[in-house]
Amino acid sequence: MSANTFGRIFRLTSFGESHGDSVGGIIDGFPSNFKIDIQAIQQEVDRRKTNSGNYSSKRNELDKLEFISGIFEGKTLGTPIAFQVKNKDAQSKDYDDLKDVYRPSHADYTWEAKYSHRDYRGGGRASARETLSRVVAGAFAKQWLASKGITFTAWVRQIGEVSAMDLSIPSYEEIEASEIRCPDKFAEAEMLKELENARKAQDSLGGLIHCEIEGVPAGIGEPVFDKLQAELAKAMLSIPAAQGFEYGSGFVGAQLRGSINNDEFEVVDGALRTKTNLSGGIQGGISNGENIYFNVAFKPVATIGREQETLKRNLEPVKLKATGRHDVCVVPRAVPIVEAMAAMVILDYYLLNIR
Amino acid sequence: MSANTFGRIFRLTSFGESHGDSVGGIIDGFPSNFKIDIQAIQQEVDRRKTNSGNYSSKRNELDKLEFISGIFEGKTLGTPIAFQVKNKDAQSKDYDDLKDVYRPSHADYTWEAKYSHRDYRGGGRASARETLSRVVAGAFAKQWLASKGITFTAWVRQIGEVSAMDLSIPSYEEIEASEIRCPDKFAEAEMLKELENARKAQDSLGGLIHCEIEGVPAGIGEPVFDKLQAELAKAMLSIPAAQGFEYGSGFVGAQLRGSINNDEFEVVDGALRTKTNLSGGIQGGISNGENIYFNVAFKPVATIGREQETLKRNLEPVKLKATGRHDVCVVPRAVPIVEAMAAMVILDYYLLNIR
Amino acid sequence: MSANTFGRIFRLTSFGESHGDSVGGIIDGFPSNFKIDIQAIQQEVDRRKTNSGNYSSKRNELDKLEFISGIFEGKTLGTPIAFQVKNKDAQSKDYDDLKDVYRPSHADYTWEAKYSHRDYRGGGRASARETLSRVVAGAFAKQWLASKGITFTAWVRQIGEVSAMDLSIPSYEEIEASEIRCPDKFAEAEMLKELENARKAQDSLGGLIHCEIEGVPAGIGEPVFDKLQAELAKAMLSIPAAQGFEYGSGFVGAQLRGSINNDEFEVVDGALRTKTNLSGGIQGGISNGENIYFNVAFKPVATIGREQETLKRNLEPVKLKATGRHDVCVVPRAVPIVEAMAAMVILDYYLLNIR
Amino acid sequence: MSANTFGRIFRLTSFGESHGDSVGGIIDGFPSNFKIDIQAIQQEVDRRKTNSGNYSSKRNELDKLEFISGIFEGKTLGTPIAFQVKNKDAQSKDYDDLKDVYRPSHADYTWEAKYSHRDYRGGGRASARETLSRVVAGAFAKQWLASKGITFTAWVRQIGEVSAMDLSIPSYEEIEASEIRCPDKFAEAEMLKELENARKAQDSLGGLIHCEIEGVPAGIGEPVFDKLQAELAKAMLSIPAAQGFEYGSGFVGAQLRGSINNDEFEVVDGALRTKTNLSGGIQGGISNGENIYFNVAFKPVATIGREQETLKRNLEPVKLKATGRHDVCVVPRAVPIVEAMAAMVILDYYLLNIR
Repeated sequence: MSANTFGRIFRLTSFGESHGDSVGGIIDGFPSNFKIDIQAIQQEVDRRKTNSGNYSSKRNELDKLEFISGIFEGKTLGTPIAFQVKNKDAQSKDYDDLKDVYRPSHADYTWEAKYSHRDYRGGGRASARETLSRVVAGAFAKQWLASKGITFTAWVRQIGEVSAMDLSIPSYEEIEASEIRCPDKFAEAEMLKELENARKAQDSLGGLIHCEIEGVPAGIGEPVFDKLQAELAKAMLSIPAAQGFEYGSGFVGAQLRGSINNDEFEVVDGALRTKTNLSGGIQGGISNGENIYFNVAFKPVATIGREQETLKRNLEPVKLKATGRHDVCVVPRAVPIVEAMAAMVILDYYLLNIR
Repeated sequence: MSANTFGRIFRLTSFGESHGDSVGGIIDGFPSNFKIDIQAIQQEVDRRKTNSGNYSSKRNELDKLEFISGIFEGKTLGTPIAFQVKNKDAQSKDYDDLKDVYRPSHADYTWEAKYSHRDYRGGGRASARETLSRVVAGAFAKQWLASKGITFTAWVRQIGEVSAMDLSIPSYEEIEASEIRCPDKFAEAEMLKELENARKAQDSLGGLIHCEIEGVPAGIGEPVFDKLQAELAKAMLSIPAAQGFEYGSGFVGAQLRGSINNDEFEVVDGALRTKTNLSGGIQGGISNGENIYFNVAFKPVATIGREQETLKRNLEPVKLKATGRHDVCVVPRAVPIVEAMAAMVILDYYLLNIR
Repeated sequence: MSANTFGRIFRLTSFGESHGDSVGGIIDGFPSNFKIDIQAIQQEVDRRKTNSGNYSSKRNELDKLEFISGIFEGKTLGTPIAFQVKNKDAQSKDYDDLKDVYRPSHADYTWEAKYSHRDYRGGGRASARETLSRVVAGAFAKQWLASKGITFTAWVRQIGEVSAMDLSIPSYEEIEASEIRCPDKFAEAEMLKELENARKAQDSLGGLIHCEIEGVPAGIGEPVFDKLQAELAKAMLSIPAAQGFEYGSGFVGAQLRGSINNDEFEVVDGALRTKTNLSGGIQGGISNGENIYFNVAFKPVATIGREQETLKRNLEPVKLKATGRHDVCVVPRAVPIVEAMAAMVILDYYLLNIR
Repeated sequence: MSANTFGRIFRLTSFGESHGDSVGGIIDGFPSNFKIDIQAIQQEVDRRKTNSGNYSSKRNELDKLEFISGIFEGKTLGTPIAFQVKNKDAQSKDYDDLKDVYRPSHADYTWEAKYSHRDYRGGGRASARETLSRVVAGAFAKQWLASKGITFTAWVRQIGEVSAMDLSIPSYEEIEASEIRCPDKFAEAEMLKELENARKAQDSLGGLIHCEIEGVPAGIGEPVFDKLQAELAKAMLSIPAAQGFEYGSGFVGAQLRGSINNDEFEVVDGALRTKTNLSGGIQGGISNGENIYFNVAFKPVATIGREQETLKRNLEPVKLKATGRHDVCVVPRAVPIVEAMAAMVILDYYLLNIR
């Protein structure tokens, strides 16, 4: 229904198939009369590009953002902000062999079951290329929220079986200095080995992204159904390849006793604070003023070079070996997407809370 | 905004404070002319009652459902189905001491920060008592979906540090035969010990619920933002005390290689099936016809008998010991709630898919 | 879909069949911590009662409002406000004859075509009794908006072929002093004759309601699709028996030239104002600070004592004479409903505009 | 909130300022696997073009539609259909004088009051140029509905004080054969004189459009709030310059007695029909299978050549004479827009009704 629209007050409606003319979207409900730094938006788009790093696909998109409406004299009009990015480097012929094949753990079969007709080239609408639009909308949200002191920092916490240490929040520079967006240097080295092994084995890896949101005031969240963590969970699980979400103490917290897991209140500098933050900054579905943090689990990339058995549309068995461009691991590239979706949720809920 | 409404075509709007007159709701969008088994709805409500088992609170509600509209001559009218349950056993005086206290890891502080005014009695609207309305709506959804061959089975997979084995789907009777809704007899015994230890220590425990959905046809789900797993994640994270969600291979899958995690297709009895089901029945946000399954992590109950330090509304420190009725562990009682939310999502998406 | 929910931020979800247990609803999104005058709400409900006046039906409902949730210590909690009114005087046996008959210009046939099953007693859900819930929600909206200086005044402008003069806005007392809510004494006398004639002829009449909204600041409205006049039109056309809406110069304005119809701007007391107000206080879908006004046309009541030819469900012809209670003209009773719907729209859009 | 999105299942999200890069939109929820006739879509766009006829503005847009996504191999994918039309002939310098002037009965002042920042060139987002996107979405809706036997026919019923006769439904060719889309030849001649007089007087005219919808089956409509006529009213009042809506017997019906206004049922060719159709094909908010028809009133164009007094942004008085391109009367050009909005509503409600 609202399949391609996300949000209520601040809304993104996105469009685009991987090998169609463009991907893009319409941002609605963004506050008017706000001076926008277009370069910063482009920079976020560049962060998710496909050709950064050795372990991502070699598709080489320029990904030049064009704004079509909603901005005048450098400031937002309060009207819909339409944008698009041309799909310049789509090599559709690479995909002709896949026209009638259902790739394992891809969306080929399910999209065909649902829509009867699909654009098989590069995954069509099911391609992660659609996340570009999310990154643009998230970049708008980030800029406005930054003006309120709210910031977003995500990084790679785990790749395959290698986990990074629990860190204090790293800087943007520390994260971007790492090819795989893991600021823990020791873990990064291990992860790179893991990635190299998977690459050689023509296989793929998944992992974990951790995200911290600083500066959210108390009072953001809409219980009972639209609790802040519920919307964050939905936002994260809507990202391609995501298959788990936890906030605060999460799955580990399910093993703890209440006396350990509870966050006692105390006064710090005259203000109410919690001594610990196993609640992840959210209590009863509403922010409490502490940092909000969560983890998102991503499955290994479904496209692999190793031979797999699968079926054609006519149910004839076929052996499949991916030959086109593809990532060994998408987790590093998903970092700006996680931040973007988080920013979209927080801006939407921030605006919802102003009454 | 839609804070107290869940769903798009099939919708529940719920109301009620824990110690107010009643809790209840309005179900809208349920198919008309459907013969409803009211006894089966009441039975689901009874499953979540507060006084079943030694480790749940002693509040003794009759929880007798009253239907006010939407049903005529035993069949649904297609009009709103309003229902309510009186709050008969609310002992509000137990809560008078808590009027000005912010209980650790409760919603007291955040609700006050957001709404400036709150009903402190029994947690008010933030009480898990609101989930009764979810169970009613879920029971309607279950009945209709059962007529299409779609069924829901949830059980307790973990309490504290004790995990049950990975089981084939148990029967309703096997689950309900267990006081704590854990059909693995060996694990159940260990869990009961864990619960007894926590009770003695005046502490509380969390845990994990596993849910399986059988019979969903291929094609259910609304990418790119309203993927089926995204809405399930939101539904689950909206349940009080839930702090994690994973489907398919989930967080463990994030450690696997693609060659292991992928589900190859094969033909069984002339039909397309997957050989494995690490995708949890969902690919690209759309059901593929296999079982849909997921885990939900619940934190330990925030209310504990052990003394905790916290603050009053005037930021004065206070020591707190819970004395009213409270659960050692809510996870067993959350089983019908998890099923109900899952059924609400599936019915809503099933109806969305019919065009 | 949202068939029984109205509004986005401020929302009413209503329920109830005419001869079911109760009618009522859930108000969500009303600002928290607002002191509510319950008596004033009840008074609005009493205004739409069925037994006031000689030309309305003799159904004698007590219409005693019960509040079930959302209000604590006299102030709103920001949680859903559930309310209901028992259907005490429903004489269902009056309607047994109509079980299988499609009354002309009633909803009997269309509801059955849509829902396959219907509550034929007193019109079921299609009865104007559902508007009671709108009046309650509108009364909440009015109270809050009054605190911002925004007020609503509707009255009867026309009954049958008799029109009242174009008046300056009358007082509440002037309107309520008239049995038929027409403050133009001369027209009122003519209307009463018209009503008496129709009553004698066992026939019915329609008419027009005029509504003025004072105090709305400039800036309310959400173009391009949710223009303020568009939502007002929807709200009004959703009222049973309404079949026309015009605002500002309306249908007459369609005959004027631009030089006459345009509202020139001028400065009054240092503030921008319009010299005339043929725009009805709205330009480009957004309020301009002048009074907002509109007319709503109501058809004559479909239920009449005169014999009519119609069909039974089995398509057998049947002659029909209404014998139960029924109004000669609903227009006077629709006055509080028009005000209520207008207030719901303005509050919703007022809250939408705060960002 | 959903300011720039219309519909629930079938949805248009539109964008674009009059003198920005483009206008366009995203259509979501259109049925998949439907063969689209792109030429027919372009033809509808051409029907609303600005340079047809002597009494419309001389802006000469090519209005060449580009489709960006959602269509593959000539058939819809079920994914968002993005489209745009470049603004080639925008003569922005014509509008520089208007930068700081609030034109009477235009949206200049109200948009600035709401958004603080506006694109003054050609009315910006408040320009009727945004309706191009509606025509595109409506053309999609029409094509699909035509495959179900549902058709839309609108024409000019009145210009200024000249009304056409009540006609049986004219053909598309009869309507398009008239420069002003009035198929009543006698009235057309009078209207053309009226237009010529207004043009000479440097003034403008409004009028009325009548629309008939044939072939809608019984059962379409979502009471109690989303009655079919309510959504049609909203759709029509969202069109720039519309200020009145009536369906069935409308405002005239408000003067009739029930015995005249009621539609008795009869059997025709074995099917239930009404003898008359003063209900306009809708009873109780749901279609009854008869033709649906309604009128929309449009005010005279606000831009006129005659001198008017108004204010600058700094509240300084200024005399204003329009010099740019502008229409004497927009009503003929609004015909395809009325049809488009009607088609969007009917498709949305048609899809909503399938459960």
